[in-house]
Amino acid sequence: MLTINEINQTGILTSRTEHDSMGDVQVPIDRYWGAQTERSRNNFKIGPNASMPKEIIEAFGFLKKAAAFANKDLNVLPADKRDLIASVCDEIIEGKLFEEFPLVIWQTGSGTQSNMNANEVIANRIHVLQGNKMGTGKPYVHPNDDVNKSQSSNDTFPTAMHIAAYKILIDVTIPGIEKLRDTLRVKSAQFKDVVKIGRTHLMDATPLTLGQEISGYVSQLDHGLKALHHTLDHLSELALGGTAVGTGMNTPAGYDVLVAKYIADFTGLPFRTADNKFEALSAHDAIVETHGALKQIAVSLMHIAHNIRMLASGPRCSIGELHLPENEPGSSIMPGKVNPTQNEAVTMVAAQVMGNDVAITVAGSNGQFQLNVFKPVMAANFLQSARLIGDACNSFNEHCAAGIEPNYDGIKKHLETSLMLVTALNPHIGYDNSARIAKSALKDNKTLREAALALGLLTNAQFDEWVRPEDMIGAIK
Amino acid sequence: MLTINEINQTGILTSRTEHDSMGDVQVPIDRYWGAQTERSRNNFKIGPNASMPKEIIEAFGFLKKAAAFANKDLNVLPADKRDLIASVCDEIIEGKLFEEFPLVIWQTGSGTQSNMNANEVIANRIHVLQGNKMGTGKPYVHPNDDVNKSQSSNDTFPTAMHIAAYKILIDVTIPGIEKLRDTLRVKSAQFKDVVKIGRTHLMDATPLTLGQEISGYVSQLDHGLKALHHTLDHLSELALGGTAVGTGMNTPAGYDVLVAKYIADFTGLPFRTADNKFEALSAHDAIVETHGALKQIAVSLMHIAHNIRMLASGPRCSIGELHLPENEPGSSIMPGKVNPTQNEAVTMVAAQVMGNDVAITVAGSNGQFQLNVFKPVMAANFLQSARLIGDACNSFNEHCAAGIEPNYDGIKKHLETSLMLVTALNPHIGYDNSARIAKSALKDNKTLREAALALGLLTNAQFDEWVRPEDMIGAIK
Amino acid sequence: MLTINEINQTGILTSRTEHDSMGDVQVPIDRYWGAQTERSRNNFKIGPNASMPKEIIEAFGFLKKAAAFANKDLNVLPADKRDLIASVCDEIIEGKLFEEFPLVIWQTGSGTQSNMNANEVIANRIHVLQGNKMGTGKPYVHPNDDVNKSQSSNDTFPTAMHIAAYKILIDVTIPGIEKLRDTLRVKSAQFKDVVKIGRTHLMDATPLTLGQEISGYVSQLDHGLKALHHTLDHLSELALGGTAVGTGMNTPAGYDVLVAKYIADFTGLPFRTADNKFEALSAHDAIVETHGALKQIAVSLMHIAHNIRMLASGPRCSIGELHLPENEPGSSIMPGKVNPTQNEAVTMVAAQVMGNDVAITVAGSNGQFQLNVFKPVMAANFLQSARLIGDACNSFNEHCAAGIEPNYDGIKKHLETSLMLVTALNPHIGYDNSARIAKSALKDNKTLREAALALGLLTNAQFDEWVRPEDMIGAIK
Amino acid sequence: MLTINEINQTGILTSRTEHDSMGDVQVPIDRYWGAQTERSRNNFKIGPNASMPKEIIEAFGFLKKAAAFANKDLNVLPADKRDLIASVCDEIIEGKLFEEFPLVIWQTGSGTQSNMNANEVIANRIHVLQGNKMGTGKPYVHPNDDVNKSQSSNDTFPTAMHIAAYKILIDVTIPGIEKLRDTLRVKSAQFKDVVKIGRTHLMDATPLTLGQEISGYVSQLDHGLKALHHTLDHLSELALGGTAVGTGMNTPAGYDVLVAKYIADFTGLPFRTADNKFEALSAHDAIVETHGALKQIAVSLMHIAHNIRMLASGPRCSIGELHLPENEPGSSIMPGKVNPTQNEAVTMVAAQVMGNDVAITVAGSNGQFQLNVFKPVMAANFLQSARLIGDACNSFNEHCAAGIEPNYDGIKKHLETSLMLVTALNPHIGYDNSARIAKSALKDNKTLREAALALGLLTNAQFDEWVRPEDMIGAIK
Repeated sequence: MLTINEINQTGILTSRTEHDSMGDVQVPIDRYWGAQTERSRNNFKIGPNASMPKEIIEAFGFLKKAAAFANKDLNVLPADKRDLIASVCDEIIEGKLFEEFPLVIWQTGSGTQSNMNANEVIANRIHVLQGNKMGTGKPYVHPNDDVNKSQSSNDTFPTAMHIAAYKILIDVTIPGIEKLRDTLRVKSAQFKDVVKIGRTHLMDATPLTLGQEISGYVSQLDHGLKALHHTLDHLSELALGGTAVGTGMNTPAGYDVLVAKYIADFTGLPFRTADNKFEALSAHDAIVETHGALKQIAVSLMHIAHNIRMLASGPRCSIGELHLPENEPGSSIMPGKVNPTQNEAVTMVAAQVMGNDVAITVAGSNGQFQLNVFKPVMAANFLQSARLIGDACNSFNEHCAAGIEPNYDGIKKHLETSLMLVTALNPHIGYDNSARIAKSALKDNKTLREAALALGLLTNAQFDEWVRPEDMIGAIK
Repeated sequence: MLTINEINQTGILTSRTEHDSMGDVQVPIDRYWGAQTERSRNNFKIGPNASMPKEIIEAFGFLKKAAAFANKDLNVLPADKRDLIASVCDEIIEGKLFEEFPLVIWQTGSGTQSNMNANEVIANRIHVLQGNKMGTGKPYVHPNDDVNKSQSSNDTFPTAMHIAAYKILIDVTIPGIEKLRDTLRVKSAQFKDVVKIGRTHLMDATPLTLGQEISGYVSQLDHGLKALHHTLDHLSELALGGTAVGTGMNTPAGYDVLVAKYIADFTGLPFRTADNKFEALSAHDAIVETHGALKQIAVSLMHIAHNIRMLASGPRCSIGELHLPENEPGSSIMPGKVNPTQNEAVTMVAAQVMGNDVAITVAGSNGQFQLNVFKPVMAANFLQSARLIGDACNSFNEHCAAGIEPNYDGIKKHLETSLMLVTALNPHIGYDNSARIAKSALKDNKTLREAALALGLLTNAQFDEWVRPEDMIGAIK
Repeated sequence: MLTINEINQTGILTSRTEHDSMGDVQVPIDRYWGAQTERSRNNFKIGPNASMPKEIIEAFGFLKKAAAFANKDLNVLPADKRDLIASVCDEIIEGKLFEEFPLVIWQTGSGTQSNMNANEVIANRIHVLQGNKMGTGKPYVHPNDDVNKSQSSNDTFPTAMHIAAYKILIDVTIPGIEKLRDTLRVKSAQFKDVVKIGRTHLMDATPLTLGQEISGYVSQLDHGLKALHHTLDHLSELALGGTAVGTGMNTPAGYDVLVAKYIADFTGLPFRTADNKFEALSAHDAIVETHGALKQIAVSLMHIAHNIRMLASGPRCSIGELHLPENEPGSSIMPGKVNPTQNEAVTMVAAQVMGNDVAITVAGSNGQFQLNVFKPVMAANFLQSARLIGDACNSFNEHCAAGIEPNYDGIKKHLETSLMLVTALNPHIGYDNSARIAKSALKDNKTLREAALALGLLTNAQFDEWVRPEDMIGAIK
Repeated sequence: MLTINEINQTGILTSRTEHDSMGDVQVPIDRYWGAQTERSRNNFKIGPNASMPKEIIEAFGFLKKAAAFANKDLNVLPADKRDLIASVCDEIIEGKLFEEFPLVIWQTGSGTQSNMNANEVIANRIHVLQGNKMGTGKPYVHPNDDVNKSQSSNDTFPTAMHIAAYKILIDVTIPGIEKLRDTLRVKSAQFKDVVKIGRTHLMDATPLTLGQEISGYVSQLDHGLKALHHTLDHLSELALGGTAVGTGMNTPAGYDVLVAKYIADFTGLPFRTADNKFEALSAHDAIVETHGALKQIAVSLMHIAHNIRMLASGPRCSIGELHLPENEPGSSIMPGKVNPTQNEAVTMVAAQVMGNDVAITVAGSNGQFQLNVFKPVMAANFLQSARLIGDACNSFNEHCAAGIEPNYDGIKKHLETSLMLVTALNPHIGYDNSARIAKSALKDNKTLREAALALGLLTNAQFDEWVRPEDMIGAIK
């Protein structure tokens, strides 16, 4: 902690003095943040700088503005202060002040220091906008008494978590998943008549169509989206108005409902005040719940991306039933080698989300008395998962899914060589004779047709008539 | 694998010969299971015997009965066979044949061998009920052709998973959680006027009532129950009718809808045929989804049970604000030592469920082509979690929650000694004077009142009038 | 809780009265356990009965015996009591009294009640062995004063955990892994000259030998075993002697070292007293550490079992480069369908162990003050993982690994059709000409040889001379 | 993908054309990277830009330099090219070229694109250092033929992972943990005579000293460091020399051993060539193993940081037995409120590491055939955990642990009021009388002394003589 103003090597003053209840702090001269932010910056040198997610900072913009509006309406803040605060909040929302937020995830577990960072930046920015110099004079708008009015770190940070979480789901995650789902639905329809071999236990089985196979992926994403939407109601509950311990002490009556309404208005999202503020401060089950749905989607994406790359494996020595777009050169040695790189990115993202779910689970279960102090780590993991899923779905959609094509030769070759088509002969020549054909084909490395004819159990024409994979892809009509 | 009939030391025949497509197998002479079950029993000696959950076996009873009814209705099974199958299924449902199911979780990942176990037991039991001796004569009802008609292991096992999962939630899990939630709600109402100190960051904070504190737990469980209910729709989808790869090959038209209807009738639960059978065989996202809700509830229970034991910690040297029921003697040395043993059981259950969630996540993400072959491990983890949560909530409810009482002395002592009540003086003597009082009290180990009077900042009567914790537990009216 | 002796429907007395410091308890008349066990049995109806692992009960046999010997040597227990206790402990170790241990995992988190279960059973069993009737007369050997002498639940249960954990690793886990490792090593040597195509990103790549491929699995297991052995030193530390809080209060001087020596003698394992008893009671990092190694091995097993089944996938429509033993009939419809069921069991076990690791992590991180009260859940998860890995390795070894054979036809076909062999032509005809050949072959669905000859770039003889996969499987000499 | 050179709004050319085997790519005109990097940059817009960890880029500096040296020694690269490559590698190691590495974690799972990024940057930087303009003329040093000589992405990326992982452990993680451990050891010695109450099950128990309590934390960290060191041998194995599939194709004989020796020389760390290159490419069990040790340390840190904050909880209404340094102002309302913010950062880091462990487990178990394609996600999670643990230990050490002081008043108050000291009376007045005292004290809210005197069971002097907590903190001598 610096005790005298810093001066750089060329003799220029590089810091100014700020105060808080513990005394003086030297703050970089041109930064809007104040004493409490600077203390946190010095006391928590853990991991990369400024790691607190931008989405949280943006969310503070929304909530500080909403609080100013609600405070004005309830007569605890004058209109001019409301407007000053709101104008800086708009700058924050527009991303113009991100570099004024230098703090890290790994600070106090209530996020108090990021709340104070917002309060200090807003107050000082107003001070400068009013033509003053930072560090001199008394700011007209006070960081605590005005910007933080009717708030506590304990209710603002969880509110910011919900705003940021809901917003990224609507802006990034859900559209990304939907785009991929829509593409796969188109592909499913497009390939609805492409009959191919099925595989269970990784072993050859009865046939289905490529369209049917892909329809399973569509259904997974549909269910995942439905699960995600189910969680949004809980996520729409805001802690704001609970202040220090959930009681709402120091807020004017009606404030909690009103401030949530303003947040809903400003974000265009259906936020409302939390049913129970004691839960909203001491537990973050809504984050646990919604991330659970993200984890389910990660499970689906792992399945989908992995199966698509297995179907495209080859080109000569594996399954080889799909062609994927060629996005990057394979090895400089091996022409024809195209790697399923988009699938790899998606499956890596899935692994990350599965890990994040455990971090969130552990953090979410450790609330103590009136406060859970694992808020920043929960927010960071949630926002990473939501961003990665959305982005990865977009990337996979654009650079892979949209370009998936059947390898008709590979599909046909497998369908023809598969022994399980023998199943179709059961009604005509009986199970035992069918089994003799299949066993003989496997043993002598023949096709079913060759084995059947060699055994004299049916004619070429009968084989054509009876062994029709296209009749094996649905229930008996 | 035995090749001749086993004879025990006293010369008595202990095995009979059964056949399957790979040849003869010796089976214990008095057991209903057949060749395929016995092969699995011999080939998978992993962990304790007969570990396949009983709930899955019971679910096979429901589904085999429903299949027999649907097959009869669709004219692919005669009425007498339907009735024979149904009668043995009823025995299975009643738990009379559990010892005929010797297989383990750690078998084939499709659960095929447990499906065959059910088929073999039903066929042989019918054979015996018809007056025959096992291993002699041809059973009237064939395990594959009749009992397994219009089915495949690949669609029966996931159907059994959903039946068992849904049923245990309705029978055990949800009632357990609700009972605990109801008790806590009563306690919350009962203690709504018990003002106590709040704690954030584990440090003394502004007050709230004990009822408010407990209301947060109620809200968590309410939200958990809501989340759990949201997942039931996905869980109500049944794979049955998809057969080998999801196409429904070898089922009569209309079978999937009808068999689901029968299962719904027999269980009294709102099952329906799955929207997409390809998903239903190759992925088990419904299990992932519902277990996600169980995991959320585990997070809540960890929070609730841990906070209650912290509040009850003591009796002399910790928080000591709650009395919990005394269920077992503490140490033979230390009278008054009662351990929060129910809370410990609950938090251990929570840790288990968090682990199970990862096992289910990993298993659920590894479906390959048309089949996920991690079905038994998913079923076992799900059913364990559902059972443990339900039982633990019941146990905690009965032996702990129902008997929670405030330790009024402890609550009062903390409320009186807490420095944060000074907050109430701000409007009267200003923040700075209030701070002087608080700092002086902390430094000199005095009460606020003592410090205030010593500093001459107010009178005894004023202190009584202004410092009223009961006015600090809600928004300003 | 019963208050009068139970009498069954035929008028026979079924319970006896036992006492503890909280009063009378009715205990089943013929059971050796006493009041405290019965209280726990009634208060914790969570999950299946008697779920406390047998290995823990056996470990209590070892430690109670060792304690009796150490107490005798240090003159706080007479020789005859030592011998009486030791003889019943031997019965426990031999598994003769397992049904006297009815308690569940989900009890008090210290395992106190299972410690008392052991104390009560030993005392009552001695009482009966001395010709007395349970519930009458004063047992010569007192459960607390004699059997539990110089002990506390808080140091016995973690000691039992370490004994049970170390023992199962030596008896089951390590031998199982070693057996599988040895078989794979033999297979690696056996197939060291079987050149086959390599695959990276699931796409065709340069060749290697099957022996090389399998050698990677051997190396994984070797490293896993080494990692596991590294953890044993921590696991060899015993808490016994720490008593209630780690200070060793109420133990005679020298007891901790001596009792560990006796446990080492009785088990034949290198146990020693813990370096720090405060750690040993309040944290179970040794369990966390060793299970971390089990989890690593699970990761390896997932890799190995999954890759082997992918190599064996087919028989016609997938990779098809390995033959696995046929252990159970595949579908009644599809001859030749053999499923990799052992691999499925192994990968399910791996998923379980990964989940258990999280349960252990959560539990292990939640010690409070002088005691971690998640002991039983840690023990149960550890022992399950250790058992399952050992059993699964044995099963996989016997029923799969030992019978793995190359499918030479499949291997040869892939090697011949692979385009990447073109790499070998670079030095002779240049990269550009090689690339022309490969691209032409892929486009026209030809072999490399066909494409090369068609393009007139080399002769048949030159192709034979230059394209030799067997020269591509090592560094340039 | 751009197809003509980009020109910005003021008419200035902003891109140059680069080629690879798939055609032309427009690259930012002043960037050293080339076509393949640019393709990846465009194809993987997932999460924040340039997220590939800096430590991996630095490690590529070491390995590319070592490869150049080994290639020169083995006569496959001229000395001048070695020196040119080495000089740019030194710039990379010094961090001068970080902005030339724009790629993300979520790219191809082999990290190929980051390997090519390094190759392209080195080749172009040399081109410029030689006085040329990028995009014109043929670079003297070729990215593939020279910089990547005797390498493949498949062996370089895992080598970079091990270099980066080992290095951060030595540079950041281990020193951080050791510093904290050393401080706690000093504190343990310093407070070795401060007798205080013990707590088990969160309930009052027999006493121990504060030094003893802290010694448990020291022992945990000692064991954690030992566990971490045990894993380093596996981590010291380098994949380099395995090239595409582990066979070492295209490397000169002896290269693998030599290049590892150079890496060891350049980094000062004991690297050696991997025992088995097939494992080294297809599995990353060393990363799994070492991260397992980091996770164990996270478990310890969660325990330590949480227990310290519980001991410091208060100041009036909780445990209050420790004073922690006051680093930031508490609430503007409540003087004396100092939050344990450093502990909160540490426990959040612990939760993150637990989550990362699952991400690494899932990723590590999913290797397919000759390659694991989850490399970047494993690297990123490992490096984050290692960095966070090291930084958090440093931060916690400096801002919390070093300043921990006992609150002697609080400790004394609890010790005096605790009822369990009655244990000391057992030998003098018998258990029953002792129990009467304790029960009476609890019931009437008296001290033990008061209750004892009131009951007339002993004198004041006897109480002083017999009830001596300082005699209860070790074994009986």
